Amino acid sequence: MSSSDLAVIILAAGKGTRMKSDTHKVLHPLAGHPMLMHLIDTLEPLNPKRRVIVVGAGKEQVEAAVGNVAEIVVQEPQLGTGHAVQVTRDALKGFDGNVLILYGDVPMLTEQTLQAMVEARRDASVVVLGFRPADTKAYGRLVVNDAGELEAIVEHKDASDEQRQINLCNSGIMAVDGRELFTLLDQVGNDNASQEYYLTDIVEIARSRGLICSVVEAHEDEVMGVNSRKELAEAEAVFQRRKRDQFMADGVTLIDPNTVFFAHDTRVGRDVVIGPNVFFGPGVTVEDRVKIHSFSHLEGATVHEGASIGPFARLRPAADIGEGAKIGNFVEVKKSTIEKGAKVSHLTYIGDARVGEGANIGAGTITCNYDGFNKFKTDIGAGAFIGSNTSLVAPVTIGEGAIVGAGSVVTREVSADALAVTRATQKELGGWALKFREKQKK
Amino acid sequence: MSSSDLAVIILAAGKGTRMKSDTHKVLHPLAGHPMLMHLIDTLEPLNPKRRVIVVGAGKEQVEAAVGNVAEIVVQEPQLGTGHAVQVTRDALKGFDGNVLILYGDVPMLTEQTLQAMVEARRDASVVVLGFRPADTKAYGRLVVNDAGELEAIVEHKDASDEQRQINLCNSGIMAVDGRELFTLLDQVGNDNASQEYYLTDIVEIARSRGLICSVVEAHEDEVMGVNSRKELAEAEAVFQRRKRDQFMADGVTLIDPNTVFFAHDTRVGRDVVIGPNVFFGPGVTVEDRVKIHSFSHLEGATVHEGASIGPFARLRPAADIGEGAKIGNFVEVKKSTIEKGAKVSHLTYIGDARVGEGANIGAGTITCNYDGFNKFKTDIGAGAFIGSNTSLVAPVTIGEGAIVGAGSVVTREVSADALAVTRATQKELGGWALKFREKQKK
Amino acid sequence: MSSSDLAVIILAAGKGTRMKSDTHKVLHPLAGHPMLMHLIDTLEPLNPKRRVIVVGAGKEQVEAAVGNVAEIVVQEPQLGTGHAVQVTRDALKGFDGNVLILYGDVPMLTEQTLQAMVEARRDASVVVLGFRPADTKAYGRLVVNDAGELEAIVEHKDASDEQRQINLCNSGIMAVDGRELFTLLDQVGNDNASQEYYLTDIVEIARSRGLICSVVEAHEDEVMGVNSRKELAEAEAVFQRRKRDQFMADGVTLIDPNTVFFAHDTRVGRDVVIGPNVFFGPGVTVEDRVKIHSFSHLEGATVHEGASIGPFARLRPAADIGEGAKIGNFVEVKKSTIEKGAKVSHLTYIGDARVGEGANIGAGTITCNYDGFNKFKTDIGAGAFIGSNTSLVAPVTIGEGAIVGAGSVVTREVSADALAVTRATQKELGGWALKFREKQKK
Repeated sequence: MSSSDLAVIILAAGKGTRMKSDTHKVLHPLAGHPMLMHLIDTLEPLNPKRRVIVVGAGKEQVEAAVGNVAEIVVQEPQLGTGHAVQVTRDALKGFDGNVLILYGDVPMLTEQTLQAMVEARRDASVVVLGFRPADTKAYGRLVVNDAGELEAIVEHKDASDEQRQINLCNSGIMAVDGRELFTLLDQVGNDNASQEYYLTDIVEIARSRGLICSVVEAHEDEVMGVNSRKELAEAEAVFQRRKRDQFMADGVTLIDPNTVFFAHDTRVGRDVVIGPNVFFGPGVTVEDRVKIHSFSHLEGATVHEGASIGPFARLRPAADIGEGAKIGNFVEVKKSTIEKGAKVSHLTYIGDARVGEGANIGAGTITCNYDGFNKFKTDIGAGAFIGSNTSLVAPVTIGEGAIVGAGSVVTREVSADALAVTRATQKELGGWALKFREKQKK
Repeated sequence: MSSSDLAVIILAAGKGTRMKSDTHKVLHPLAGHPMLMHLIDTLEPLNPKRRVIVVGAGKEQVEAAVGNVAEIVVQEPQLGTGHAVQVTRDALKGFDGNVLILYGDVPMLTEQTLQAMVEARRDASVVVLGFRPADTKAYGRLVVNDAGELEAIVEHKDASDEQRQINLCNSGIMAVDGRELFTLLDQVGNDNASQEYYLTDIVEIARSRGLICSVVEAHEDEVMGVNSRKELAEAEAVFQRRKRDQFMADGVTLIDPNTVFFAHDTRVGRDVVIGPNVFFGPGVTVEDRVKIHSFSHLEGATVHEGASIGPFARLRPAADIGEGAKIGNFVEVKKSTIEKGAKVSHLTYIGDARVGEGANIGAGTITCNYDGFNKFKTDIGAGAFIGSNTSLVAPVTIGEGAIVGAGSVVTREVSADALAVTRATQKELGGWALKFREKQKK
Repeated sequence: MSSSDLAVIILAAGKGTRMKSDTHKVLHPLAGHPMLMHLIDTLEPLNPKRRVIVVGAGKEQVEAAVGNVAEIVVQEPQLGTGHAVQVTRDALKGFDGNVLILYGDVPMLTEQTLQAMVEARRDASVVVLGFRPADTKAYGRLVVNDAGELEAIVEHKDASDEQRQINLCNSGIMAVDGRELFTLLDQVGNDNASQEYYLTDIVEIARSRGLICSVVEAHEDEVMGVNSRKELAEAEAVFQRRKRDQFMADGVTLIDPNTVFFAHDTRVGRDVVIGPNVFFGPGVTVEDRVKIHSFSHLEGATVHEGASIGPFARLRPAADIGEGAKIGNFVEVKKSTIEKGAKVSHLTYIGDARVGEGANIGAGTITCNYDGFNKFKTDIGAGAFIGSNTSLVAPVTIGEGAIVGAGSVVTREVSADALAVTRATQKELGGWALKFREKQKK
């Protein structure tokens, strides 16, 4: 262990009562990803050596979501934030680097801010993350002296009128010298109204021992807490605003940024145009010069250069849309490769299939990939033309350049360059419709 | 009649010229429900004994919308708000309880505010509803004395500089002692620029007779008037914001609250997740743990626990989606029961049907429920598997556990556990496509 | 040439680096129309005699977009705005009317403002367009004397504290007497930090020569510049807000105005109701009393009186939807006429077709209009009834009042009042499904 190593403690023992949910508060998703995982992802570039999550109830849920990325310890009973950090003592035994103390329900921190805290830690034993809210409400205030040192954290109720003029507030987030952390915590008492051990008390203790404390500032957005579904929606809005601004700065046109929803991991190339009302689930990559029209819904899909998607297109996981290909309205593509320049323009389901280069899939075509038990593959050769309302009963192969007549049910291989059709004879009953209508009117 | 009984007068004689509409102003819908009906619904818990609506033109339209819920009287000519209340005199003959005077184009009042007015009426002969707008504009000001009594309503143009500092404004809405109302109105004159009889004048008259007047305050949102399509959209936004906030507080996740549209009567359970861009028409009930994905449109439907809807799903009236069932993309369900765990995943129309428990409906399946004159029923047994692109020509029954082959047109009953198929032989013309293409290129 | 004639110079030589695009900045679309074309369209009622566009790189792109509407001159090298106007000297040779100098990336000017500038030009040699921004930032300030004359344009960095209090800022847009313009420009020097020739310098030069300069004011929205995708989105938002407000004022209900997107040329009649999330591409006309439900996407379509569109409808160019007709969910209509009262309710593609008056098109119907090379027509007679999941293989005619059975593939003409059907016999294999399932479970 080096003194520049990083450990992260994420406090997540809150009850989350206001969420009114059976899901643990920190597992509610933002942009399709549990808010706890957003924090863990943001920390990644800082390369933490240890990650410890402190939970109250719901350990199993958190474990299931986090896997073995972090150690999970239970705080029981819950005697305050200072106590919550205390319970990580065993997990951090022997660690003498930097300790970041975060909150599972404060997920919008940026890497830049966390880096700044770690850097500030070099010159101070305790670094507190402050912010300047538009409305200081009842937040604790950070009292900083002329030397730029943090002198005290004053709770709003204890603050003088002068101190209440301070608009630098305490987020509760800290970076602490790991060699000092538990020594400081041991001195924290619970002689207060709620008989809790407050983490913030370590600042006063550190100061009294002659240790330096300092402040790093974050934007108010970064330290917003999520305690209700409304705050969850607000955090989602912050996430989306950041992504939208980032993509626009990178050369993506968003006709109405407010109506395009990105996932945590969406990637979008240059000169891509995205219409209003487009939704990206996780795992989507969009290459340069793609057009995504309104009312499109993409998850786990890759869209190659210059392709056109929608309106009213749904790309599901493992849809791979080739260069210049077209996916039109009321089309669903799942686990299929649509090769270069192929067109699937309307009212079609393509699942577990390959659509060869330049092939044209008529409206109403369905790949019948499922028999109730297993999924089967459809392979459509380059340049094939599938007539409208065709059912391709997988497993089945349509040869290169083949044509399938409209309304066919194809159950056997179609040879390259052949025409295949399954069709009953068209019969006509003259005057039948007239008689039928007359009968109905009686 | 008891003196605690309630009568409601709703003034709706305004011409609504700015709406530029053939529809009576108070019948323009908010959240799928005429704004007049919002008022009437809000009043319901106060259990009014009489409801009187005062209209100018368009009596028939209002009658058609309201039915026999209220008595409709015509004010002709229209000589001001005082005169409008005067014309209800016959309708309220013998009534000596509380009289609430509302406006048909001020539809966003809350039950709490109306209750507060009725309660305040016990201690005052006239209760005026005030509000504190961000911008007091040219609103009349409410002058309240130290005893909390309303001393005067001062029109903006008549107000002193000091009075204009008052930010408590007159909404025009009142609760009046029914024993006094018409006596007060009889003293209202029309000696003013527009020669109208103003309802607000009864405050001065009441005061001069030693009666007590008081004020109840409402949020500015509640007293917004709807005089144009833009104001209609603003009222809709207020309605939607209230509903969204209420549902989020109750434990519903709205990924982007601004893009989810509720109807006046939508009911949503706990731990429901609703994606961006979902529209609820009237009559929808969503039970706990349902997921409604983006681009879904629901009207008159019931969605049972744990079901999954959309994206791109349309549920029409009398769609009943069973526990854990799945309705996928480009699927329309109308007047049909989809039983527990059944799946209708893509590109399907289910109308006038029952889909049995655990059944699987392939992509492109259509229930042919209509012959141009009548609608017929389709009954699909539990565990049945309907192959893709199938037409089920109703009336028709598919037995439990039956399988229908892809592309079939089913016109006769299919037995339980049987396989049914209608299919012509697949024919192939080798090389035909090649020749066809060559011919086209010439 | 008359002295009241108008010439317009549009400066568009900026590099547009922040757009990060291969498309010339002024060609990025707003509401489906290049921003440069918005300017040109706005100018149209002023009937300019000459239009000159000054470009740097990308002349070909601009030419391709503008056609022969304007003369395009290249400024190379680019030595400032004054220099940019200088390079139009040949193009404007002999012109002695009014010269409007605009910027290709300032596209939101209104006709009213441009008219006001031209009118103000009668009394002044140089008219500068000013605006009063919420935040004056580092904008140049317009110093106006008591006589209302523009005395100077002071750059922010050169402004005194007092001058910085002025909130009337310089947009850079000017109307100049064509007889003076180039004489004034000849006196502009480049003795400044960036060694550029600034157009704004002509004000000082004009004043020194005793010419009158004046100011016309515009709303801040009108003079916003578009230098990044974010600003492009902001300009789009301004455009959309104007259109939405205009339509609402004209008697259109927009349930949520923020989610309806109009094109530059959309026309909408009275008492039309448009649900949330509707997108209009260019070329759409909607007549009175039409209802357009949520999730509809229209381009190049005409919708006649009282028709109903959507939800989930897509109307493509040359879709003509008749009076009272209905286009329902998951329906695409392209280059087709749907006559009065006809219904296309679900999951259908109608392309290159006529659907006669009162006809009913069943769910899943596809007009097979394309054989991979050519498009063919489908003609459906009045009152015809097309059963569900039917393929109409064009060219094909369905006679008036004919009925086509569900699941048919129609390749030959169907006579009026006849019933046509193509259908294989329904076969049943008893118990097959049961055995199949048992095998799967093994």
